[in-house]
Amino acid sequence: MFRNFSIVPNIMFGRGSFNQLSDIINPHRISPDSYFVFVLDDVFKGKTLESRLPLQGKDLMLQVNVDDEPKTSYIDALVRQIRDYSAVKPDGIVGIGGGATMDIAKAISLMLNNPGSSADYQGWDLIKNPSVYHVAVPTLAGTGAEISRTTILTGPVKKLGINSDYTLFHQIVLDPELLAGVPKDQWFYTGMDCYIHDVESLNGTFINEFSKAYGEKSIDLCRQVFLEDHPEKDDKLMMASYFGGMSIAYSQVGACHALSYGLSYVLGIHHGIGCCIAFDYLEEIYPEGVQEFRQMMEKHRITLPRKLTANMDREALELMVTTALNLVPLWENCLGPDWQKQMTRERCLELYRRM
Amino acid sequence: MFRNFSIVPNIMFGRGSFNQLSDIINPHRISPDSYFVFVLDDVFKGKTLESRLPLQGKDLMLQVNVDDEPKTSYIDALVRQIRDYSAVKPDGIVGIGGGATMDIAKAISLMLNNPGSSADYQGWDLIKNPSVYHVAVPTLAGTGAEISRTTILTGPVKKLGINSDYTLFHQIVLDPELLAGVPKDQWFYTGMDCYIHDVESLNGTFINEFSKAYGEKSIDLCRQVFLEDHPEKDDKLMMASYFGGMSIAYSQVGACHALSYGLSYVLGIHHGIGCCIAFDYLEEIYPEGVQEFRQMMEKHRITLPRKLTANMDREALELMVTTALNLVPLWENCLGPDWQKQMTRERCLELYRRM
Repeated sequence: MFRNFSIVPNIMFGRGSFNQLSDIINPHRISPDSYFVFVLDDVFKGKTLESRLPLQGKDLMLQVNVDDEPKTSYIDALVRQIRDYSAVKPDGIVGIGGGATMDIAKAISLMLNNPGSSADYQGWDLIKNPSVYHVAVPTLAGTGAEISRTTILTGPVKKLGINSDYTLFHQIVLDPELLAGVPKDQWFYTGMDCYIHDVESLNGTFINEFSKAYGEKSIDLCRQVFLEDHPEKDDKLMMASYFGGMSIAYSQVGACHALSYGLSYVLGIHHGIGCCIAFDYLEEIYPEGVQEFRQMMEKHRITLPRKLTANMDREALELMVTTALNLVPLWENCLGPDWQKQMTRERCLELYRRM
Repeated sequence: MFRNFSIVPNIMFGRGSFNQLSDIINPHRISPDSYFVFVLDDVFKGKTLESRLPLQGKDLMLQVNVDDEPKTSYIDALVRQIRDYSAVKPDGIVGIGGGATMDIAKAISLMLNNPGSSADYQGWDLIKNPSVYHVAVPTLAGTGAEISRTTILTGPVKKLGINSDYTLFHQIVLDPELLAGVPKDQWFYTGMDCYIHDVESLNGTFINEFSKAYGEKSIDLCRQVFLEDHPEKDDKLMMASYFGGMSIAYSQVGACHALSYGLSYVLGIHHGIGCCIAFDYLEEIYPEGVQEFRQMMEKHRITLPRKLTANMDREALELMVTTALNLVPLWENCLGPDWQKQMTRERCLELYRRM
């Protein structure tokens, strides 16, 4: 059985395309007394980008904080804030920022049309009603959040996405100019999220020629960005992120993403850097990928934090292992149907102990 | 100004995915007394594929003939046939075949919801009403018709597509198994349509990193198919066609496609072979592409027809030139804004004379 794969149906790409945001969203201003919600990473507070947002009429600006990765409680609070702001539902949500901000925009647009807490929907295809129209404007490239059918949330009992076709954005605006000014470490970690997607997808057992075409081109673009320092590297990284997302959308990520989830859930480590930390210990599983990743780290003089688990007690370590091993599809993609024989709790624990 | 680019929003890819066609279309059987129309290339009459179509209830099978490329009069007749068949509009159209059959399915789905003749809509964004739900199942790879926002029709006064976001399929099913059994010449000519798309897109002045990422991967896949004879070549050619279509969707084709339109309009030459005939004389414009194309021809022992224009009168030749030069965006992409200085009527005539 093949999955019928849904894609974000509208894309605008180009340097300066952000200037056309109002032309894109205005036809979706349809309900009287309604408004748009702009979900903006609060790192842009007082910056030029904030003043360039095409707010009008009753539009609401929600500056969100992503120092911590998005929690279900935070989503629920933001949805309450919108409901308190107006009895009318917004006509649309625009998320401007990196993966976490885009995930917040996705989750809000789902929860405005679905009852209860966002924690109720962590899992696969639990969402019943279509979301509010929502648009992504990435200012960081690599996560693939702009194209994925998930929004990753940390809930009271698990870190797990709301996976649904309704999670998909209706529109993405890819303006490579918006990548300018990102701190180098963050640029690198987020870009490596994409590189690692590609390695995991291309080396996974779920791979097919669809995912391969996207994954191979994405990794090729990552090399141009991180090894060759190509003059068009911002444009290329944006395409790499989109292609990387398309590649895993029809296959899966693997061991590194599973381990990174454990690091995030228990230690609150952000996804991008968490992937880098975990990947550096996965030479046995992804020998060539890890070697090339280290070349990229060296070229950009990136130093990863070490000994993160040295002072952790057994219980916390075991929780990390459980979090990682619960992600069955990721391990199946990585190691095949008998993955449990290969990735035992002990082996997983040992990997975490070395980090 | 950047174009807000619409994409076919649902894709299924995989060997045997055709078997899931009924699962895909059944949720779209929504109107009481309605039905689906299966538009099938009549080359499959009596073949296994015909018997595998998931017809049920009042579904209508339309076996279409594509010995000639689709004419607007043929589309209008097929639409009348559907209207005569039932007073109720079909819930959906499924096109199964190559580029011409897919174009017929697209045009029918548009014309069922738009008044008048299909000839009235040849051009850009003339369609007013959304189309009926329509699905593509390609049995040939290379045209990119499965992903393009056009349906190329020969009308009473021109060969020109109905270009509209409404032309886009709602769903494509890419099953590489369906490519088996295509005659070698046709396989080659249709594949070269894709290869030439890529060369024209990558060497065009409209190129950006979006179109480049798709075009470069598509041409890479074409090389694996036509030069390396890769064991997964059917899967790869299907992806090459999709990527080639995505590449030109955000840029444009060029000189070869413009000249091929003239050959089709005046001599009735099919698009794929027409592209091959024209491309072989475009060494000045696409030196590397034409050289590699000749390697591919040699490897597959393809012989192109020659001296097609030897016995043509001046008037017919001039009509070919006019047809080709009317395609302004193609020439602008190929040669830049001052294309008319470079591609004069004389130079175009001379190119046709050599064919």
